[in-house]
Amino acid sequence: MPYRPFVNQNCSIARALEVVGERWTLLVMREVLLGRRRFAEIKRNVGIAPNILSDRLQTLVGHGLLERQLYSEHPESYEYVLTGKGLDLAPILIALQQWGDRHAPAEGGPPRIPVHTVCGHDTQPQLSCSHCGKPIGSGELQVRPGPGASNEQLAEGTLPKG
Amino acid sequence: MPYRPFVNQNCSIARALEVVGERWTLLVMREVLLGRRRFAEIKRNVGIAPNILSDRLQTLVGHGLLERQLYSEHPESYEYVLTGKGLDLAPILIALQQWGDRHAPAEGGPPRIPVHTVCGHDTQPQLSCSHCGKPIGSGELQVRPGPGASNEQLAEGTLPKG
Repeated sequence: MPYRPFVNQNCSIARALEVVGERWTLLVMREVLLGRRRFAEIKRNVGIAPNILSDRLQTLVGHGLLERQLYSEHPESYEYVLTGKGLDLAPILIALQQWGDRHAPAEGGPPRIPVHTVCGHDTQPQLSCSHCGKPIGSGELQVRPGPGASNEQLAEGTLPKG
Repeated sequence: MPYRPFVNQNCSIARALEVVGERWTLLVMREVLLGRRRFAEIKRNVGIAPNILSDRLQTLVGHGLLERQLYSEHPESYEYVLTGKGLDLAPILIALQQWGDRHAPAEGGPPRIPVHTVCGHDTQPQLSCSHCGKPIGSGELQVRPGPGASNEQLAEGTLPKG
């Protein structure tokens, strides 16, 4: 089934979702981010059919989020290694994990807790402002039209973001 | 087409995706976060078929991310208002936007630029540690098994996260 792109939106969220928004893709990337690089272990942990996993991995390699590397010649087998572009998905997955922990919780509490390796403590990563350094609270962001804005987006001006 | 859940994963990312991972859903939520609350304007901006939008809105109301409120009696019409649970999606959409800006850029540059309303400046929100307050760099997170971990997750111990 061909994937119809989100056309005419002029939106970086839509463009990101064209790459990673397909069902299973973010779960496959979760596995690689957790250090699982091999087809069989990704397949097992995600519970994905092999033909679909094969297709998703090919797409992710094609878009430059993963690299396929030979790790054994006899038998010939490969592993999938993160690129910088793939590693940059981490904040998306962290945000999904935090939302799930809070709003769709598992019985018994969070299955996984993030740890900040630099300070060594459990952490709930939070957004902070690159300008003033303060934590960004709920409803404290707006968006203004950027250099790539369409005429319509320019006319809208600044909008709330939540 | 029924949506088969991501079963047996014991993962908050998978549980979050069961609510918001369907095609179009995050784009619908983007619109509401940008202040568009009415069916017609969401439909136009997302470029979504009305039957699909109707279904997605119903799902989002059912899961408690949006509330349907009467805003006009003659003619009878409704708008969709964010709940706290819906507003908490903002960090996911910001992370997607930043990834799209960087790795799937529009010609001419970012269509939209986040502004921190508290300090009034453009911002590139970044993750910081809730314990030590420092920005969290790429590859500086791990995950450890939490109270809801399965036996298998407990046996895995601490894993990298990118």
